Amino acid sequence: MALDLHDYVASIPDYPEKGVIFRDISPLMGDGAAYKQATNEIVNYARDKGVEMIVGPEARGFIVGCPVAYELGVGFAPARKKGKLPRPTIKATYDLEYGTSSLYLHKDAVKPGQRVLVTDDLLATGGTISATIDLVEELGGIVVGTAFIIELKDMHGRDKIKDYDMLSLMKY
Amino acid sequence: MALDLHDYVASIPDYPEKGVIFRDISPLMGDGAAYKQATNEIVNYARDKGVEMIVGPEARGFIVGCPVAYELGVGFAPARKKGKLPRPTIKATYDLEYGTSSLYLHKDAVKPGQRVLVTDDLLATGGTISATIDLVEELGGIVVGTAFIIELKDMHGRDKIKDYDMLSLMKY
Repeated sequence: MALDLHDYVASIPDYPEKGVIFRDISPLMGDGAAYKQATNEIVNYARDKGVEMIVGPEARGFIVGCPVAYELGVGFAPARKKGKLPRPTIKATYDLEYGTSSLYLHKDAVKPGQRVLVTDDLLATGGTISATIDLVEELGGIVVGTAFIIELKDMHGRDKIKDYDMLSLMKY
Repeated sequence: MALDLHDYVASIPDYPEKGVIFRDISPLMGDGAAYKQATNEIVNYARDKGVEMIVGPEARGFIVGCPVAYELGVGFAPARKKGKLPRPTIKATYDLEYGTSSLYLHKDAVKPGQRVLVTDDLLATGGTISATIDLVEELGGIVVGTAFIIELKDMHGRDKIKDYDMLSLMKY
């Protein structure tokens, strides 16, 4: 009997600012059965796509992607903020509400032609995931899919990554 | 045939400062077979200890702990820096070379009496892991073990957590 994963999302009104409802997946990760079920849905999706490598942005993208990588027997590469990766990196910059931010990936994180799944906990505007996709493609990787626990429909992130296949386990 | 995991550690001289050799496990995570082998060693350790929950500090502690949680079918709770957890938290402060830093854990992350494994990629001075242990114990959790990919022996972190059982996959 499958769990309803919606029961494992905490909805926090007016966080981080008034009028916003924050969707927190920490109850889902904190429950062994719910975490396993959510991970297995992504594993099945990734297996169908012949995924050979997983890349996720820090830090909740690690929580989503790492068990998928383990189960598939493939590697995981973290896309990180400035100063967090010790070896030579490439960089992608993306827009925030005010200003910009950057993500970095080790130059040897993805091999040319490798079939890559990009994971994060939540798809909002799509800025973070687009930057992560850019990094993978700059290294010659093929983004065969993207996977999220939650998609915030009103933020239209799906439009930003419409050229890529996408799995979201829950929509709000 | 087991892999020699040392072959998957990148050693970076003079990083982040002169005279320090940084041990980077990103090649290990990036290789499916090495990541699986390392994870399975921690899974076997955790299974023997009857682990019911895993807690790891951000962000590389997630990469180590999350697949272990998945394989065991238990939950994972992230210990995070200030402003990263949206619901009520507790806090632990620890010393850095200059100044202090703090880690936070959701108040409902661990249940009283729960058997907890604390994971991180690397044991150095032990400051981060001690703070994580403090958080778990403040919530009434029982720290039945700690697990690391790498232990830096000269930093004597082992002395700081000598009251706890410990697994380190590699020593430098």
